[in-house]
Amino acid sequence: MKETTVCPRLSKAMELIGKRWTGLILYQLLEGPQRFNEIVSSLPVSGRLLSERLKELEKEGLVERNVFAEVPVKVEYSLTEKGKGLKDAIANIEQWSKVWLS
Amino acid sequence: MKETTVCPRLSKAMELIGKRWTGLILYQLLEGPQRFNEIVSSLPVSGRLLSERLKELEKEGLVERNVFAEVPVKVEYSLTEKGKGLKDAIANIEQWSKVWLS
Repeated sequence: MKETTVCPRLSKAMELIGKRWTGLILYQLLEGPQRFNEIVSSLPVSGRLLSERLKELEKEGLVERNVFAEVPVKVEYSLTEKGKGLKDAIANIEQWSKVWLS
Repeated sequence: MKETTVCPRLSKAMELIGKRWTGLILYQLLEGPQRFNEIVSSLPVSGRLLSERLKELEKEGLVERNVFAEVPVKVEYSLTEKGKGLKDAIANIEQWSKVWLS
């Protein structure tokens, strides 16, 4: 493998956040816990892909899935502390988009 | 098309920055103007893909290509003001990766 100087953790972070829709899903969940339908109706993403991304984010420890024993059962997704840790980065990207993108 | 609430500019920014290797290329160029070989040897990316990404970033106005009329001709890539505008976001992602990724 090619010897490179970039930090593997930064590489992993960029890969993780860079996945299509991940940034927007995190942005959406920064508003607080939400149900699947609330997230899917706010973003131009398909249900299948959203479900896939939420599973990945759960596995990476950025999102947690909360099941409420009600009838019918209620399931909410929310950011973990690790997920909330990206708040500043996402806010910076949003600010950049307002300044530089028309 | 599905009616959604997310800001199209944020969507475009996430898509742009989220492309594989783009974040790391921007991170690398934050160190200053560099030649193609300097960039490709610092990142685990292929020459073909780096060339593709640099063209896209040029088109989006984040990177500029400077040709110096020397013998042999010298070509350097550097961030534009628009590209440098992502410095804080990238620094935040780097910081996050140090705290949360092992």
